[in-house]
Amino acid sequence: MKKVAIGIDIGGTNTAFGVVDAAGNGYGQGRISTAGYPNIDDFQHDLALAISELIQDEEVEPVGIGIGAPNADFYRGTIVDAPNLPWKGTVPFVEKFRRFFPSRPIRITNDANAAALGEMIYGGARGMQNFIVVTLGTGLGSGFVTGGELLLGHSGFAGELGHVTVDPTGRMCGCGRRGCLETCVSATGIKRTLFQLLADRTESSELRDISYHELTAELIFCAAEKGDPLALEAFAYTGEQLGRALANAVLITDPEAIFLFGGLARAGKYIFEPTGRHLEANLLPAFRGKIKLLPSGVPEGNAAILGTAALIWHRDGADLIER
Amino acid sequence: MKKVAIGIDIGGTNTAFGVVDAAGNGYGQGRISTAGYPNIDDFQHDLALAISELIQDEEVEPVGIGIGAPNADFYRGTIVDAPNLPWKGTVPFVEKFRRFFPSRPIRITNDANAAALGEMIYGGARGMQNFIVVTLGTGLGSGFVTGGELLLGHSGFAGELGHVTVDPTGRMCGCGRRGCLETCVSATGIKRTLFQLLADRTESSELRDISYHELTAELIFCAAEKGDPLALEAFAYTGEQLGRALANAVLITDPEAIFLFGGLARAGKYIFEPTGRHLEANLLPAFRGKIKLLPSGVPEGNAAILGTAALIWHRDGADLIER
Repeated sequence: MKKVAIGIDIGGTNTAFGVVDAAGNGYGQGRISTAGYPNIDDFQHDLALAISELIQDEEVEPVGIGIGAPNADFYRGTIVDAPNLPWKGTVPFVEKFRRFFPSRPIRITNDANAAALGEMIYGGARGMQNFIVVTLGTGLGSGFVTGGELLLGHSGFAGELGHVTVDPTGRMCGCGRRGCLETCVSATGIKRTLFQLLADRTESSELRDISYHELTAELIFCAAEKGDPLALEAFAYTGEQLGRALANAVLITDPEAIFLFGGLARAGKYIFEPTGRHLEANLLPAFRGKIKLLPSGVPEGNAAILGTAALIWHRDGADLIER
Repeated sequence: MKKVAIGIDIGGTNTAFGVVDAAGNGYGQGRISTAGYPNIDDFQHDLALAISELIQDEEVEPVGIGIGAPNADFYRGTIVDAPNLPWKGTVPFVEKFRRFFPSRPIRITNDANAAALGEMIYGGARGMQNFIVVTLGTGLGSGFVTGGELLLGHSGFAGELGHVTVDPTGRMCGCGRRGCLETCVSATGIKRTLFQLLADRTESSELRDISYHELTAELIFCAAEKGDPLALEAFAYTGEQLGRALANAVLITDPEAIFLFGGLARAGKYIFEPTGRHLEANLLPAFRGKIKLLPSGVPEGNAAILGTAALIWHRDGADLIER
């Protein structure tokens, strides 16, 4: 029987799950709706059923279940006031889910922490003890590994780089404050930057024909590829803000490498070049030339499943991991 | 025989050393010159001799030797390009010192990391797994404990909060960059702030009679006690900058408490009140009301010896510590 971990990635719309071994080989995956289950018990029942059906015909032995969810509290196994999930307040997700899998470890953390563990077990951070993973999606998430362990902090909410204040009088953030990093550095952030440039500047741009709701980071990338000056400047500004913020984060955790993951990271040189340049220019001299800025080494289509499964391998199956 | 640790605090002018047990009881201390020894071998010889003389008549058994020094590299046991010490380049301090104490662990780290361990073993952080110690001296140092371990990072230089950029166009820093936190928040920083206020404002102040070289943080404190408006404002500004920077640091390491240690921290309410207020006002909502801002609980006269000794207790004598 092949030892496997079950990874579950709970998103606002759908929940994906999959079965992988310590080397990253997949043994099937599936998905169910999240939004369609206002009742958490119904959701867990159908999720557990779908997982059981998935593994019943495979020659596998599950070592444990790793879960990624927004606002997840690793220590308590709860999901707390997640704005995009249908279940309100504090949901004791792990405790409730245990009735379906009573004899296996079940662990939960947020998406960015799962991404960091995925990078460590399956990606470019193999063998690293100190690194940062920045996930650039609708918002900006981050997971820090220090001394070979996930940095969780006192209440399990460490690694919220997206809400570092870069400008106290800056853009309004969903958290109720102003000038958080993710108001500039995220898919939404670059869109806001582009709209600010459309307002400030007079250059012609194909993006002047697109509404705020229609505009996406991908469209800005396509315009940049064609040499659109405002799209190029939006990427340059995004990278500058990210590079500066990372230079400050380096001072606190002294990482060997920083990995960029997610939608914006796919823009390649447009985001990596300015980020790397401003990171380097703003580093304390002792750190210059020493911090690697890298794209994530985890295959993107599978990253959420691999990351949540890594939560199990790191804690409960360290002996099975190929280093 | 009482088990003890030897703590050594290497400063630019003098080196203090002392013998303490796991409960913090002292068994003698002494000091030798640092500045008087351009040759590291002579320095180590006389330091080892002084330590041997100190312990020879005591009923003690040294468990190990902990050393605090500027620019110390924990992993390699070296002191690297310390501007205020007489020995230039990379000094393999631990390797060289081992000839005098061949059979005991010898560990070295920077002053702020030693202060953090001192707080954990002997001070207000007893029982805490996640906290920050900020040392406010001529500069600003910081030591982070996460998950019960000192945050050291990849090259051993984690926890350099003093060089976080708070204003990219701000004051020149000794590191060659601009706007580092310690250019505002330190004994030197508050002096620079006061001089800026003397230039900007027209209010009368007794501090207008004092030269830059004569001015100290203590004189600013005394003026504040008498209601001097510029001195009060200098403290308010210092606390605001510190509070804002700490709110960002909280997002990364999620500490239970933040301890302020050193000269400026002795200014009590003048520094704690604005720091606490701006910390709280700038925290992400999830952290509000949860982060304790506290004065160090380590007796100040002894703090450097206790902190460097803690380096040994934490690593080599955990079973002897009273929790």
